Amino acid sequence: MQLENYIRDIQGFPKEGILFKDITPLLNDAQATQECLKTLAASLKGQKINKVVGAESRGFLFGILLAQELNAGFVPVRKPGKLPYDTVSVSYDLEYGTDILEIHKDAIQKGDKVLIHDDVLATGGTAKAVCELVEKLGGEIVQLNFLMELTFLNGREKLNGYDIFAAVTY
Amino acid sequence: MQLENYIRDIQGFPKEGILFKDITPLLNDAQATQECLKTLAASLKGQKINKVVGAESRGFLFGILLAQELNAGFVPVRKPGKLPYDTVSVSYDLEYGTDILEIHKDAIQKGDKVLIHDDVLATGGTAKAVCELVEKLGGEIVQLNFLMELTFLNGREKLNGYDIFAAVTY
Repeated sequence: MQLENYIRDIQGFPKEGILFKDITPLLNDAQATQECLKTLAASLKGQKINKVVGAESRGFLFGILLAQELNAGFVPVRKPGKLPYDTVSVSYDLEYGTDILEIHKDAIQKGDKVLIHDDVLATGGTAKAVCELVEKLGGEIVQLNFLMELTFLNGREKLNGYDIFAAVTY
Repeated sequence: MQLENYIRDIQGFPKEGILFKDITPLLNDAQATQECLKTLAASLKGQKINKVVGAESRGFLFGILLAQELNAGFVPVRKPGKLPYDTVSVSYDLEYGTDILEIHKDAIQKGDKVLIHDDVLATGGTAKAVCELVEKLGGEIVQLNFLMELTFLNGREKLNGYDIFAAVTY
């Protein structure tokens, strides 16, 4: 099975000049989703994971599937004001302006082996911010795990020193 | 295992006077998440499901787990401007003002057996809107499936005629 066949190109979304990779056809197919999950999990080669961290919203999808597959807890990273308990936060640069992400203070214990998942590695800004949050809480990042990588955006340059896996690369 | 033990009360979130039910401790525990998933899936008593629909963002979590558990496709329902392909939309009343939800036009085929999942049944407004979206596409709603039900908000009154299940009731 070629996972690429379940990812749809959308021209001009969310704005003109951008080619968006739409994973909803993949999600819509139970077998393709299962195959993708197995590919993402196999990349860990049996390394123990205590927590899988996924960023709002699309990172929740394979994030929680991976957590169950690896028998690990799932930790949501969210936009400000969405997490109800005590949080730590990090701000990071966007193309224009900055954004903020938050994590619950008690979500990760010192020494936890952490897998960070998101649907796409683009410029690496979000992934870098999530790494900071996990490390503020004392988590050890085992791998940054993506469904897709847009290699022409050079996100890896921002993520030096981390193990990175992507199931599909463009 | 009592799922209630993994759901945390947060006083005054998102605003004063509201007691928020925080499911992040449940998500943080792989075994509790697994137990919750089995409870949600068992309520279907083997009925065939083709598509599980989950509303952004917390509905994505057990929504996609249920989809895999039931060997069904997963369909995200999202806020306006988030879904990249052709959509149908529905607007619904909030306490103050209205909100809009969207679904991809090709996400559900006529006659598909659909499970709608969300984390919480409160006033029923969101669930009712998701039902409308599914029925616009010709889907047959088998069950409305919730992790929690806040019975004092009488959400069931808005959802007459649908089979409703909640794993935990308050």
